Amino acid sequence: MPSARVDPRDAVFEALDTFARRHIGPADAESAAMCAAVGVGSLDGLVAKTVPDNITIANPTRLGPGLSESELLAEVKRIAAMNKVYRSYIGMGYSGTITPPVILRNIMENPGWYTQYTPYQPEISQGRLESLINYQTMVQELTGLDIANASLLDEATAAAEAMLICYSQANRKKDVFFVDHNCLPQTIACVKTRAQGFGINVVVGDFETFDFAAHKGKVAGALIQYPSQFGEVSNYEAFVKRAHDNGALVACATDLLALALLKPPGEFGVDIALGNSQRFGVPLGYGGPHAAFFAVKDALKRRMPGRLIGVSKDATGKPAYRLALQTREQHIRREKATSNICTAQALLANMAAMYAVYHGPDGIRAIAQRVHNLTAILARAISSLGHSVANSAFFDTLKIATAGPAAAVVAAALEKKINLRKIDDAHVGITLDETVTKQDLEDLVAVFAATSPKPAAAAAVLATAAEGISAETPAAAFGANAARTSKYLTHPVFNSYHSETEMLRYITMLMNKDLSLANAMIPLGSCTMKLNATTEMIPVTLPEFGNIHPFVPLDQAEGYKTLIKELEYGIAQATGFDYVSMQPNSGAQGEYTGLRVIKAYLESIGQGHRDVCLIPVSAHGTNPASAAMCGMTVVTVKCDDAGNLDLDDLRAKSEKHKDRLAATMITYPSTYGVFEAGIKEACAIIHANGGQVYMDGANLNAQLGLCKPAEIGADVCHLNNHKTLAIPHGGGGPGMGPIGVKSHLGPFLPGHPVVPTGGSKAIGPVSAAPWGSASILPISWAYMKMLGDDGVRKATQVALLNANYMLRRLEKHYPILYTNKDGFCAHEFIIDCRPFDATSHVQAIDIAKRLHDYGFHSPTMSFPVANTLMIEPTESESKAELDRFCDAMIQIRQEIRDIEEGRQPRDNNVLTNAPHTVDVLIGAEWNRPYSRETAAFPVPSLRRRKFWPTVSRVDDTFGDRNLICSCPPIEDYEQ
Amino acid sequence: MPSARVDPRDAVFEALDTFARRHIGPADAESAAMCAAVGVGSLDGLVAKTVPDNITIANPTRLGPGLSESELLAEVKRIAAMNKVYRSYIGMGYSGTITPPVILRNIMENPGWYTQYTPYQPEISQGRLESLINYQTMVQELTGLDIANASLLDEATAAAEAMLICYSQANRKKDVFFVDHNCLPQTIACVKTRAQGFGINVVVGDFETFDFAAHKGKVAGALIQYPSQFGEVSNYEAFVKRAHDNGALVACATDLLALALLKPPGEFGVDIALGNSQRFGVPLGYGGPHAAFFAVKDALKRRMPGRLIGVSKDATGKPAYRLALQTREQHIRREKATSNICTAQALLANMAAMYAVYHGPDGIRAIAQRVHNLTAILARAISSLGHSVANSAFFDTLKIATAGPAAAVVAAALEKKINLRKIDDAHVGITLDETVTKQDLEDLVAVFAATSPKPAAAAAVLATAAEGISAETPAAAFGANAARTSKYLTHPVFNSYHSETEMLRYITMLMNKDLSLANAMIPLGSCTMKLNATTEMIPVTLPEFGNIHPFVPLDQAEGYKTLIKELEYGIAQATGFDYVSMQPNSGAQGEYTGLRVIKAYLESIGQGHRDVCLIPVSAHGTNPASAAMCGMTVVTVKCDDAGNLDLDDLRAKSEKHKDRLAATMITYPSTYGVFEAGIKEACAIIHANGGQVYMDGANLNAQLGLCKPAEIGADVCHLNNHKTLAIPHGGGGPGMGPIGVKSHLGPFLPGHPVVPTGGSKAIGPVSAAPWGSASILPISWAYMKMLGDDGVRKATQVALLNANYMLRRLEKHYPILYTNKDGFCAHEFIIDCRPFDATSHVQAIDIAKRLHDYGFHSPTMSFPVANTLMIEPTESESKAELDRFCDAMIQIRQEIRDIEEGRQPRDNNVLTNAPHTVDVLIGAEWNRPYSRETAAFPVPSLRRRKFWPTVSRVDDTFGDRNLICSCPPIEDYEQ
Ligand SMILES: Cc1ncc(COP(=O)(O)O)c(C=O)c1O
Ligand SMILES: Cc1ncc(COP(=O)(O)O)c(C=O)c1O
Ligand SMILES: O=C([O-])O
Repeated sequence: MPSARVDPRDAVFEALDTFARRHIGPADAESAAMCAAVGVGSLDGLVAKTVPDNITIANPTRLGPGLSESELLAEVKRIAAMNKVYRSYIGMGYSGTITPPVILRNIMENPGWYTQYTPYQPEISQGRLESLINYQTMVQELTGLDIANASLLDEATAAAEAMLICYSQANRKKDVFFVDHNCLPQTIACVKTRAQGFGINVVVGDFETFDFAAHKGKVAGALIQYPSQFGEVSNYEAFVKRAHDNGALVACATDLLALALLKPPGEFGVDIALGNSQRFGVPLGYGGPHAAFFAVKDALKRRMPGRLIGVSKDATGKPAYRLALQTREQHIRREKATSNICTAQALLANMAAMYAVYHGPDGIRAIAQRVHNLTAILARAISSLGHSVANSAFFDTLKIATAGPAAAVVAAALEKKINLRKIDDAHVGITLDETVTKQDLEDLVAVFAATSPKPAAAAAVLATAAEGISAETPAAAFGANAARTSKYLTHPVFNSYHSETEMLRYITMLMNKDLSLANAMIPLGSCTMKLNATTEMIPVTLPEFGNIHPFVPLDQAEGYKTLIKELEYGIAQATGFDYVSMQPNSGAQGEYTGLRVIKAYLESIGQGHRDVCLIPVSAHGTNPASAAMCGMTVVTVKCDDAGNLDLDDLRAKSEKHKDRLAATMITYPSTYGVFEAGIKEACAIIHANGGQVYMDGANLNAQLGLCKPAEIGADVCHLNNHKTLAIPHGGGGPGMGPIGVKSHLGPFLPGHPVVPTGGSKAIGPVSAAPWGSASILPISWAYMKMLGDDGVRKATQVALLNANYMLRRLEKHYPILYTNKDGFCAHEFIIDCRPFDATSHVQAIDIAKRLHDYGFHSPTMSFPVANTLMIEPTESESKAELDRFCDAMIQIRQEIRDIEEGRQPRDNNVLTNAPHTVDVLIGAEWNRPYSRETAAFPVPSLRRRKFWPTVSRVDDTFGDRNLICSCPPIEDYEQ
Repeated sequence: MPSARVDPRDAVFEALDTFARRHIGPADAESAAMCAAVGVGSLDGLVAKTVPDNITIANPTRLGPGLSESELLAEVKRIAAMNKVYRSYIGMGYSGTITPPVILRNIMENPGWYTQYTPYQPEISQGRLESLINYQTMVQELTGLDIANASLLDEATAAAEAMLICYSQANRKKDVFFVDHNCLPQTIACVKTRAQGFGINVVVGDFETFDFAAHKGKVAGALIQYPSQFGEVSNYEAFVKRAHDNGALVACATDLLALALLKPPGEFGVDIALGNSQRFGVPLGYGGPHAAFFAVKDALKRRMPGRLIGVSKDATGKPAYRLALQTREQHIRREKATSNICTAQALLANMAAMYAVYHGPDGIRAIAQRVHNLTAILARAISSLGHSVANSAFFDTLKIATAGPAAAVVAAALEKKINLRKIDDAHVGITLDETVTKQDLEDLVAVFAATSPKPAAAAAVLATAAEGISAETPAAAFGANAARTSKYLTHPVFNSYHSETEMLRYITMLMNKDLSLANAMIPLGSCTMKLNATTEMIPVTLPEFGNIHPFVPLDQAEGYKTLIKELEYGIAQATGFDYVSMQPNSGAQGEYTGLRVIKAYLESIGQGHRDVCLIPVSAHGTNPASAAMCGMTVVTVKCDDAGNLDLDDLRAKSEKHKDRLAATMITYPSTYGVFEAGIKEACAIIHANGGQVYMDGANLNAQLGLCKPAEIGADVCHLNNHKTLAIPHGGGGPGMGPIGVKSHLGPFLPGHPVVPTGGSKAIGPVSAAPWGSASILPISWAYMKMLGDDGVRKATQVALLNANYMLRRLEKHYPILYTNKDGFCAHEFIIDCRPFDATSHVQAIDIAKRLHDYGFHSPTMSFPVANTLMIEPTESESKAELDRFCDAMIQIRQEIRDIEEGRQPRDNNVLTNAPHTVDVLIGAEWNRPYSRETAAFPVPSLRRRKFWPTVSRVDDTFGDRNLICSCPPIEDYEQ
């Protein structure tokens, strides 16, 4: 579709591999027919019926015409080539790693894995649940702690979460948190950022000399780093004891690879361990996405943030995995929250877990030993050249007091395309990793030889340094006391799949248990499970994007810079904002960042006392949680019966709190799936009372190209790139939650302690890396580049069309909760299942599970209203798939009617017993009041295409009562 | 595993991502235990028991130590960078194409597709069978013929196959075959090569003037090219009529994309259409692999070579796909054969079919129209610059009479990194394709402007030339009469999956019906289904390998040259031969080539009359077929009761035919899976009688590193790279069948008419491309590079170990057909199922199908002995998987015993009814004498990991009687 802006004489030359028609499900003829079915004449007509007049776009986006897929690929390669892939020994929480090719190709590059959603529906998610429990088991065993979660966003925010566990464990009564100065700088900075909202006093000092007593019992906890940012392997035993004696908990940031050789934190008393699991096979990617790990002692398990996978049993009594303590999440503790984490890093956790599965304990130990031994050799070599190694004990990182100025050494290294860490004028840091070769070491030695008072030939120096260090044993330069003696990764899963063939089959077997977008639509309201196109994904695994350390000199990251700038421009165009920050790693992080920016702005204009945040009852749990984390007081605003924000209530509460009003948080279209007509007025009310408007951008997929948050009146808005901008959900992450802000807020966008970024009066960082999960930004960039103005607008129109088409088909069969005055929804709508309770005992969950039998993922269950199903098809679903889903729903309605009308009993029917596994269906006994075939193949097309749930309905209560969060004995599965 | 040749002081630096332990299934501790179970003390001890002393390797291989996986990837990128990716407009049967990324990632880069075997077991292969039938339907409809096969090796050999259909249709009584001189040069050359063995007289001439009458009814057929090699779109109607009037058939080489706009060959009377389907989304890859298409009139269908997919029904009466007329294949017509094709190009055919599915008729037409219109514009532009276009009618290819010397134009193009075809001193050729952009055209025009008598600005020339040509309609520079009016791709499958989401799901749905190495072992004797490692596969889809036209100037292919040289060296090392030819595209092609080389050699020493080829009864059907195709007389040699070559018979027949003895063909180890002790003697007997020894290398996986064909006495041997050297089978191709020869045969290795290659007295080409399927050679290269000497040897040892371990476990339960005197097999062994007929009526096929219920592919059925199963585990299978398979076989033996002992009826038991689909298992009626669970889950581990057959036992007879070889109505599948 050549854009109007293209010279018409060029039409004959236009590329044909245009993207919009591949991204958008219905073909033009189909969408015309669907418009007719919906009762409008055209897509524009539909927009007129759904989007309020007064917010229609004022300044159309200026993204330009879309590139074709091959043009995009050429362009992205050009940009990738602008990055310079040097060898980086910068360390600081990020290390080179070898992604085993079998994992790269079959997980990271496989839509069967990366298009999965968070495993809320365990019956069709046993594969990734098993993999995530492998991850938890690995973290638990390597750290020596009792229980681990399924990942957090990054190491720095994980440290902040640890602080808040300490704080809440002390019932918020102790307000000092000690941080050792040898923790990573970005970690310290993020911890400080997070502390502010709670009024926690972060004291940075030296763990050896820190005086707990001086703080009079007010120290809630402490954070140490092991090995430290400079590589030191300290003995923290005495410190931990002191902390405990003084009533403080201890969190330890650590490194999984080091723990293969070093005594684990759990064995010297630490309460919480955390860190980055990136070096277990996840590319550097200029800072992310990577999975942060997090483990705690048993006593703290119910305070642990993030998702936790547990073992429960299914309706037949067989073991089954599921998200444990799941209710915590969608109903996050709201006003009392210390965490708002929702999207995490499941895909990356799975990669790290698979790395451990593939290498096994011996393989991991061998890698650790090699890295350590090479570091020991390097230390000797550098010392012999007249520089001095400052570490007394180390694993893989050295702090070198250089013979001359550190800058000269860093410069000599750059000459050889090597990045060292410049610590200060007299010191450089070097961190080795598993990718290092003998040649790399020689090159490193040559750098130190060239800057040495007594130069020598690198090869000879290296050979001498290597004498007596053998591949068979660790050099143990970390000291004998620090050596690990306990076993790890003992479960069969870590000891069975070490050939590529076995590994491939394990990966495939798990994948085939899981329903992803490669199988069927995943119509999750509020989640926007659209196409993650291959062309968008290809750049992610290009080495020029993957192999860049986040702290390289900026001139090595020109490709990233260009791409990020263009994406910022695109987001600004699409939203109407003036500035964009790419730092937040998820929607929830975006909320938090946005509110912090608002706070900083208010302080800058002498309104720092403003602390009330108005949030509608319908809001997502992360909204109040984020507000609470910023030290705000949440005041709830009502909705009217039609699901709209109650403007009178908003006005009343705004006025009531007008002296303290800081902000409101509004999701638009609303979480009920409606473009509220009063949105502009709502913004005006807030502004009139001195507050700022935060728009939750989860539903931006209904806006782009049709209206703009900034024009509507928002001051800040986040985007969920993993919803609106085509980043795949990865089974529960990665995500990206950049925020756009109006110009008055620009100066406050978050900064970074290592890489200059953010506004002139930047708040502290909210992520470990300056641009969050940079390596997945090419996805969103490609998405916008390929759609262009016309495509973006059309995608949104079809998102509305698809939803309204389904609404029209289903409203004849189910009560619909909210629509606008003309009976139209936005990009999603809610089916009300509550009436069925009285007529048939059927609940939303029964319909959800029965949908699995029809081969579908369920819609969003019980959000934003309990016992409802919220359906969001997105623009990527074809008419055929929408019809297939509607047919299923209509047939299910018939099945409900069979209960209502007494043809089927209330407690034993296809819904209550759903989903049906093959296991159950072929059991010898069959004494149900419906046939096996009715259970399995309620519609004929299932005989050709059927996705099978692998366990029966999972018992959540049992699982939560008997919390088991590590790998169960394999035999349990083979009875 | 550092090799002994590495400096021991370097051990500490050695990379850990070594390949052998990932490629080889059993870990060292396991293989020690397996040796014990087999009754030997070590791998070397096993070799001593299996490989005859007198052939043990004399000169160990000198491949060097293996590279680690990351070293290999670095090395391959270095080599890839030596190729120069210019824009190529050379045409000649190869065109640039855009592989839709969704197909690239989810088929070409997906082990679920590329590790499949030929779909001989239809119940676990319905996915690729459906895709191949899509391919056949597409070819049929685009060519306008009645029936198409599922691919041949390349266009040139397809033309040769067409000639042989004409020849055999005339009962070998007409020996003239006319070839129009405007056919592609490599096609003409291959046809000539193939004609020789049959004594066919190929007359090359002008179709307009060819005088059939002059040949007195001796013309069997004719070959024309449409459009011609120079782009001309001729009207062949009169010619076809003349041919038919003279009793000759007509074959037409053609281009699928052109047929989207041009009247198809079937509509002007052609009997056979063929060509290359490469430009439907398959990368150029320096010549292959690509799928050649082949379609015939109904009357010729039973003469059609290659695999044909048909629709039949399963045991429940439902439609099911399967290989039609399959019995032709494994029992190829032997001595009467005109074709030996076995491995074809299934994966590439699937890609091409999916390209058509994704684009649909409108998309394909739009692509054709754009390519044509750009060609028309270019023709005008070039003409306006004073060069002249020689074509009167064209689709996408122009022959330009250059204003000055053609060489100057070619040189000016090269300056701009553009390859044109130099036709002769006064003409250049240009072929456009779907990748061409406006910029590309401008650059082309600039080349002609720079060499023009009246230079002008390229952009302006182009703009003028484009006037009046619209994207909406074809420029129709092929003439109105040639325009296509008939429809194509009308089946729903070509009209349903045009969004990426739908396409992804279709690809995934089909894949999930098919058992591949990603699911379970595929223990096919004689097929060597080993690991196809990701690291080996990654190079294949690098653009530096993919985007090279086979006829580029050699200095643009330095990377390929380097890699091919190194692989030739590796193969020479492994086999002991002096020269290697990479041209043959399959094992069968290797056989043919080797025998032709032998023939040429014999002629060169005045022994051209020698024409007897001795072939053991146990030989694969391709052996006698290849001999027959070389004009040899096949004489069969007996085997003794122990399965060994009957040396007395061999001696007797050698002596009997000693004046005519040309060669023998011996598979080693034998197709019975035994290292025959008499092999050296056999070779000596042949040599003593003036013959040459051809070794069929299908079983080389038992030899590499332990013995060498050349040392044993072979003069020629082919390798199946798709068996021994890790190229994946792709569901029935691609393959590569290079041959190694001793020095006396070197001069005769095949040449090529376009790119100089082969020996000094080269036989004609046997493939369209000079180095066969060059783009998959990196796989075999990487395999040998990463294993190195130690790894290659160990892989072979473990291949022997795995087979003998299974033999030991299974011989207690099943009769084994042949072992050596100590009771050892080589890398495979045969289970004799014939005795079960009497005891239980059970046949090999029942066991094979019952194995599907256990989640396995069956072993090779009834080759080399009817009613047997031949098991080859390969070195890549782990002990766990071998045990899982043996457990299944042992349990099946128990199931047979239940029949034998009357507990189960002979005609209604788990074996006769196997495989069991979910459909059948959950049917309402269950009146079988065993339970549903016994059918589905005979062993408990199946509850965790089960692969489901999707149709019941397929009825071959029905299908062959009612041959349907195109897409059936979709509703048939949804009853
Ligand atoms: C309305 C709304 N707000 C916020 C979020 C949180 O976003 P994230 O999961 O990216 O942290 C969600 C997630 O589904 C949401 O639906
Ligand atoms: C012994 C033997 N020879 C020849 C061949 C033919 O090889 P290809 O299929 O590569 O043409 C085979 C194929 O399996 C074989 O097993
Ligand atoms: O293709 C085979 O004949 O094995």
